[in-house]
Amino acid sequence: MNVRISKENYKNRVIRVQEHLQKKNSSGLFVTNPYNIFYMTGLFHFPTERPITLFIPQKGESIFFVPVMEVEESERVTSFEDIRSYFEYPGTIHPINWMISEIKKTFTNLTTISMDAGEKTLFERVNEALGDVALNIDTIVHQMRLIKDEEEIDLLRKAGIYSDYIVEVGTQIAEPGISELELLQEMNNRTLQKMVEELDEVIFVPGGPSGGLVPSGIRTSMPHALPSSKKLQKGETQILSCGANVGGYRVECERTCFINDVSKEQEKAFQVMAKAQQLAIETMKPGITCAEVDRVALDYIRQEGYGDYLLHRTGHGKGLEEHEAPWVEEGDTTVLESGMVLSSEPGIYIEGFSGFRHSDTIVVTDDEPLVLTKFPKELDKLII
Amino acid sequence: MNVRISKENYKNRVIRVQEHLQKKNSSGLFVTNPYNIFYMTGLFHFPTERPITLFIPQKGESIFFVPVMEVEESERVTSFEDIRSYFEYPGTIHPINWMISEIKKTFTNLTTISMDAGEKTLFERVNEALGDVALNIDTIVHQMRLIKDEEEIDLLRKAGIYSDYIVEVGTQIAEPGISELELLQEMNNRTLQKMVEELDEVIFVPGGPSGGLVPSGIRTSMPHALPSSKKLQKGETQILSCGANVGGYRVECERTCFINDVSKEQEKAFQVMAKAQQLAIETMKPGITCAEVDRVALDYIRQEGYGDYLLHRTGHGKGLEEHEAPWVEEGDTTVLESGMVLSSEPGIYIEGFSGFRHSDTIVVTDDEPLVLTKFPKELDKLII
Repeated sequence: MNVRISKENYKNRVIRVQEHLQKKNSSGLFVTNPYNIFYMTGLFHFPTERPITLFIPQKGESIFFVPVMEVEESERVTSFEDIRSYFEYPGTIHPINWMISEIKKTFTNLTTISMDAGEKTLFERVNEALGDVALNIDTIVHQMRLIKDEEEIDLLRKAGIYSDYIVEVGTQIAEPGISELELLQEMNNRTLQKMVEELDEVIFVPGGPSGGLVPSGIRTSMPHALPSSKKLQKGETQILSCGANVGGYRVECERTCFINDVSKEQEKAFQVMAKAQQLAIETMKPGITCAEVDRVALDYIRQEGYGDYLLHRTGHGKGLEEHEAPWVEEGDTTVLESGMVLSSEPGIYIEGFSGFRHSDTIVVTDDEPLVLTKFPKELDKLII
Repeated sequence: MNVRISKENYKNRVIRVQEHLQKKNSSGLFVTNPYNIFYMTGLFHFPTERPITLFIPQKGESIFFVPVMEVEESERVTSFEDIRSYFEYPGTIHPINWMISEIKKTFTNLTTISMDAGEKTLFERVNEALGDVALNIDTIVHQMRLIKDEEEIDLLRKAGIYSDYIVEVGTQIAEPGISELELLQEMNNRTLQKMVEELDEVIFVPGGPSGGLVPSGIRTSMPHALPSSKKLQKGETQILSCGANVGGYRVECERTCFINDVSKEQEKAFQVMAKAQQLAIETMKPGITCAEVDRVALDYIRQEGYGDYLLHRTGHGKGLEEHEAPWVEEGDTTVLESGMVLSSEPGIYIEGFSGFRHSDTIVVTDDEPLVLTKFPKELDKLII
């Protein structure tokens, strides 16, 4: 199965940026954010102190700047004709200063340059190196990333398959006596095996090809409890909070399970969480704001008497990043559009007792919300 | 085995920052960098859009700001009395604005605030929220992190043991027919097992408890080639580029091996690399600059006729981050001091043929350099 965005699509993305630059009368965009670099070029890299950047001029050929150790891979995965490399960081000339001088040498009519983001010190370095040329911040690439195109949704669909699979494996092997660490490792082992067999390429992004959190018992009341050597026990809640990525696109599937048995108290909180999670999904349609979706889910939980046990919002955007904009939270008034991808995962967390959270990954469409994760959510399927 | 820095040490770190603030007449330090937060508080977190910050006033009690979902863990691992929490990101009031207003309410005589780093937008948000109070950047925590204390070196020693172990496992199971992905997974499985059995706690940091890159054959000419489904073959070079962390402190051990057999051409480049790597280690003493160490190693490689095959510097600092300052590179004139921790890893990379790189992690001391990784480096031990 192919896991790469087409070269044609990458070319169109550059064209869209250039049209935007023309409209706002900027001479070029200096792309520095690692996920924006992946989105615009197809080169995934673990960001280190060695900067990798892309300069897209208003007209003409882009320049892709990489450390010399990334040239071979850049030539393999991208189709830029102008790849320029520097030896090392920090270098006797800072790589960023060298890049800006290359840009100024190549394009002599620069008036204003835009930059996609950046540390304060990076911004100041670029600004100083540009001299007379003005510098501003422009979020066009982040904006483009908000709405997923068909190829991106296709990769997300595939990621949904492996996100379901890792949860399925978890439900099969979770049993009293196994530790959280062993459980997660075996879930990852089997999922990676399947991905290696079925996909043309497994792209390593932070967190790995698949992964997750698998807290058990009272540890489930901490939403981000990292895997520990605690052993699973009969009657305890077991959260399988998992995800996988295909071609760098991330999907999450999370299920709240129970080892062998469930108590009335667990069941009650579970049903409130499950209903809230479903209500949020049904609300995810074009025209509604993120804040409204959040309110629907959290208000239901409050109304059922669990308001004191909320520790987080309803969800967040998914895509190249584990968490990305928009935020399904009361402070985000972004209006949903077709092509946005969101998680729905309101949770209930009762310290010293148990936590409860399902999560699905959803594509907003002009019709019904498209749920990418399909593992069963009903209580009787989750007593394992 | 204990993997935590003592509470007394954390208290002393706060005192050192306060003494610094007094000297430079700053009213307080606003710590925002995730690794600086870990260093100052003992709370490790995967940075997300939800900010976690620490305010250290020139005099008085620090305030630790966390999202509500991190309160339980913060109370467990830190000893701050004043932990304040916000509900969510982005919130109707941005969490950073709320933090600054809490700081201004608590400390009414602020004149100048320092901040440890930060995105341009973060700096501007803090600056605006502070109003009349001036804001500047201060790198005191980064400076403190450069020189490791005894407790830190003890954790690094322990991390050295597991870094050696994962390489050892690799040499035992690497054989023709196994894929890079399977090889790495089994190396990680066995290493994690050992860590879980022997350590009080395994702290998950980005990259996992142990990890690495295991390129084989012509893929070894790319220094950062990610694990693939390529299968190992007899006569090929096999790089085991591994590391482990204990208590969040990272050590790396990398060895260039050969599957069953080695050719004259491989052997020649291997010996040049191995000698350069050893020369750099012997040079790592107080008083010498990073640039000088780098020159010793890379000049030797150039002198032996492999100058065209250099793709990177000699090394970098190690500690809480995989790569951190100082940089063993010609552009870094930092003078080495006792307590600095560095990698020595000059490499030779011949495209279409093979790469060659060993790496050790070294503590600079007033006596001889202390090498934390001890797996054998001689050719005859590395034909596997």
